[in-house]
Amino acid sequence: MREDDLVRLIARHAGAVPEGDVGIGDDAAVVSGRWILAHDMLVEDVHFRWAWATPADVGHKALAVNVSDVAAMGAEPRAVVVGLALGPGPLSGDGAVASLYDAMTALAGRHGCAIVGGDTSSSATTVVGVTVLGACPTDVAPVRRDTARPGDALYVTGTLGAAAAGLAVLEGHAAASHDPDGALRAAQRRPEPQTAHGVALARAGARAMIDCSDGLARDVGRLAAASGLAAVVDLDAVPTAPGVADVARAVGADPGVFAATGGEDYALIAAFAPGATLPADVPLTCIGRLEPGSGVRFTPDGRVPSGAALGWQHDLP
Amino acid sequence: MREDDLVRLIARHAGAVPEGDVGIGDDAAVVSGRWILAHDMLVEDVHFRWAWATPADVGHKALAVNVSDVAAMGAEPRAVVVGLALGPGPLSGDGAVASLYDAMTALAGRHGCAIVGGDTSSSATTVVGVTVLGACPTDVAPVRRDTARPGDALYVTGTLGAAAAGLAVLEGHAAASHDPDGALRAAQRRPEPQTAHGVALARAGARAMIDCSDGLARDVGRLAAASGLAAVVDLDAVPTAPGVADVARAVGADPGVFAATGGEDYALIAAFAPGATLPADVPLTCIGRLEPGSGVRFTPDGRVPSGAALGWQHDLP
Repeated sequence: MREDDLVRLIARHAGAVPEGDVGIGDDAAVVSGRWILAHDMLVEDVHFRWAWATPADVGHKALAVNVSDVAAMGAEPRAVVVGLALGPGPLSGDGAVASLYDAMTALAGRHGCAIVGGDTSSSATTVVGVTVLGACPTDVAPVRRDTARPGDALYVTGTLGAAAAGLAVLEGHAAASHDPDGALRAAQRRPEPQTAHGVALARAGARAMIDCSDGLARDVGRLAAASGLAAVVDLDAVPTAPGVADVARAVGADPGVFAATGGEDYALIAAFAPGATLPADVPLTCIGRLEPGSGVRFTPDGRVPSGAALGWQHDLP
Repeated sequence: MREDDLVRLIARHAGAVPEGDVGIGDDAAVVSGRWILAHDMLVEDVHFRWAWATPADVGHKALAVNVSDVAAMGAEPRAVVVGLALGPGPLSGDGAVASLYDAMTALAGRHGCAIVGGDTSSSATTVVGVTVLGACPTDVAPVRRDTARPGDALYVTGTLGAAAAGLAVLEGHAAASHDPDGALRAAQRRPEPQTAHGVALARAGARAMIDCSDGLARDVGRLAAASGLAAVVDLDAVPTAPGVADVARAVGADPGVFAATGGEDYALIAAFAPGATLPADVPLTCIGRLEPGSGVRFTPDGRVPSGAALGWQHDLP
C-alpha cells in the first residue's frame, strides 16, 4: 500500500479531533488552538543506511524532519521526546548513543527547543521516532495545508534537489566526483529545518503551507488536494541547487524533473493570494499556481513522463 | 547496559530544560508548567510477541502505557500521535492496521483524548511508538517523582501481579489452567490506565507519584532514589491480584515477591505525608514508607533474595 493510502486508512480509524483542532492529514496536528504536535520516524534501511549515515547524522535528521513539520504550520519547536529502538549495529555502543543525542541537542538548541524525555529499547532493527511539541507565536495562527484558494500563487523557499542528489551519490548511483565538497551528501544527511522562514511566511499571511519532504511535485499535489484544487507547476521555474543538474544527468534524469521530484530538502511550499506582499527575509521562488479542479499539471507539457513516480515514497532506491 | 543506566547516559547528553519544567527522569515531561509529554514504545519480540498478541492488543497497550505515564503526573491525556514501523507479520494487512487503530481509538475515547497524527513506515521489525500530550486540570499541579519527603507513607492503587502472571501463562511458563477465565492474560494484553485515580491522588495532595510499570520494587526504588530517600516495602502488605499466587508457585516464586517484582500492572504508586486525608474513591493500600538514606529494603527480612532482579527490564523472559 502506498503511504498516502495508508494514511487515509488510518485517518478513517483514528476518530475525530475536537472542533477547531487539526488531526491526521496535515504536516502536524493542532491541539487547543496553538499547540502543534509532529511525529516522524527514521527507520534503518528504509530512510537511512548505516553504511553512509553516522549515529549523529541519524539523530540530527530524525529531529530535523519533525522541526520542519512544525515550521510548516508557522510554529516554533518547544519540546522534543525521542523513542530510540536500538538495533544491532553502530548504536549498540554507548558512545554512539551519546553522539546521536549530542547532535539532536545541538540542533534543538539552534531552534529554541529542548529534549525533555522519551524511551529506549533493544530491537531487531533501529527505529528513531521523534515527537516535537511546538507553539505558534502569539500573533500567528497555525497555517494548514487545506486552506488555499483558486488563483493563489505557489512559492518554494530556497533551492531543491540537493538532498536527492546527495542520496544518489551515497547510494552509488552517481560518482562522488559529482559532489566534490560533500555539500549534496550533507544536504541528505544533515538538513537544516526552516523554522524562521515558516514563522515569517505565516506572519506574512500565507494562506496554506506544507513542507517539501517528499518532493515538490508530490507535496504541491498534497496541498492542492487538501484544498480541493488543481496545481500547475512550471518546471522551468523550479530553483535547482548547485550541482544537482550534473547528478541528475548522471542518473539519466531531466534536471528540472529531478529537482521537482527528489525529496528531503525540507524547504517550505506556501500559497499566497495573488499580489500579496511577500516577506523580504525569505528566499522565495514562484513555481506555479492553484486553479479550480484536481491533480497536478506540469508545464512545459510532457516533461514529466505520464505515470512517473512523482516523489519519494519513504523507501531507499 | 541496563535501561536505567542508558537513561542516565541520555540525560547527560540531552541538554537542559527551561526553569520550572521537568525533563528526562520522570514518568513524563512537563512543558510550560502544565502540559505533559509522554513517549513509550512497544517493540516486537521485546515487549510482545505476535504469537500471543493481536494487532488490537498491541495498539491498546501502546497507548495505555503512555496514558498511565500521564496519569502518574496527575494529568489527563488530550492528544496522541503514533509512529507505526510495520514489520512483516500480522500488520502487513490493511485490516490489521485498522484493527490496531480501532483499539487505540476506543481506549482514547474512554480517557478523553484523540489520535491526531503520526507516521508510518515499513520496517524489518514492528515498533509502535506513541506520544501522549496531556494537561493537568487547572486546580492540579504536576506531581513529580522527586518530591517525596522522609516519613511519607507509600501507597499503591488496586492489586498487583496480574500482568506478570498473565505473561507467564502466555509465554508457557505456567499452564493456561491457572488462568481459567483469561483475566491474567487480559491484564497483560489490555491494561487499563488509571487516569481518574491519578488526578484524584494529585488533587488529594500526593507529594510524589510514579506509575508501576516495571514492578513495585523497582518503581518504588526509582521514586525513592529521585527524592534522595530510602524506601521500606512490606511484602506482606502488597495487594496481590486474584490468581497470581497460584501462578507464582507454578513458576517457583514467592507470591508476595512475584507480585512486588512483576511489572506492567500500570497501577500508581503515591507518597503521602503521614496522616494525610486520602481520596475516598481510589482503592489504596499502604505498602511501606520513605526514610532518610538510599536503596529499597524489604520486610520481612530475607524474602527477596539478595541480588535478585527487582523487576521487569523491558525484555521478554
